[in-house]
Amino acid sequence: MEQLDENATVISAAKVTGTAVFNTEGEQLGEIHDVMLDKRSGKIAYAVLSFGGLLGIGQSYHPLPWAILKYDTRQGGYVVGITIDQLKGAPTYAASEPPAWTDRAYEARIHDYYKAAPYWSV
Amino acid sequence: MEQLDENATVISAAKVTGTAVFNTEGEQLGEIHDVMLDKRSGKIAYAVLSFGGLLGIGQSYHPLPWAILKYDTRQGGYVVGITIDQLKGAPTYAASEPPAWTDRAYEARIHDYYKAAPYWSV
Repeated sequence: MEQLDENATVISAAKVTGTAVFNTEGEQLGEIHDVMLDKRSGKIAYAVLSFGGLLGIGQSYHPLPWAILKYDTRQGGYVVGITIDQLKGAPTYAASEPPAWTDRAYEARIHDYYKAAPYWSV
Repeated sequence: MEQLDENATVISAAKVTGTAVFNTEGEQLGEIHDVMLDKRSGKIAYAVLSFGGLLGIGQSYHPLPWAILKYDTRQGGYVVGITIDQLKGAPTYAASEPPAWTDRAYEARIHDYYKAAPYWSV
């Protein structure tokens, strides 16, 4: 996998996609499937984690608030402070049923779950 | 080409990529090659326009400040208020020579060229 350049403050969405995501125990949770952008505020909204392929259950997509991802050069991936059990209870959708993304209440629930400040309020 | 959903405020970077870009005269300038993200501010920094393929010159990448792109549902693409001649004089790079993206002065030049407020100051 291509290492992201940590010196660059500006990074390519295409390179973020496919990057591994680990928890703080070093377990790989999955990888970044896509990055979601908020048009109105011009903010990066979510990194969508694809989860489940490695664990033998159906792959699901979990939108993670962008602010909770930290890049770790040693592991060559993002680290988030969530357990696999927490992820299993998190807001999720199947590839065939993406959310409408028109609903701030749904987005608020995502941010609440991860105890992250909503990107549209900071 | 897949139409972007204009009702959604949150859109997929993967779907933005490949979307056509037109100028206000309806000329197609090219298409979005990638989206650049500013890690520190959490802002969408640039849509990188790939330009030249249709016009018979070597394809080049032009980072366009995100704020200058407006989506037009009728054309199914983004519209920007720049002429082809303006684009030929704009900050650009070849696929083989991407900028380091560590230099705010370079980024300020991009925003100056398009008379856009720098995303890190708004």
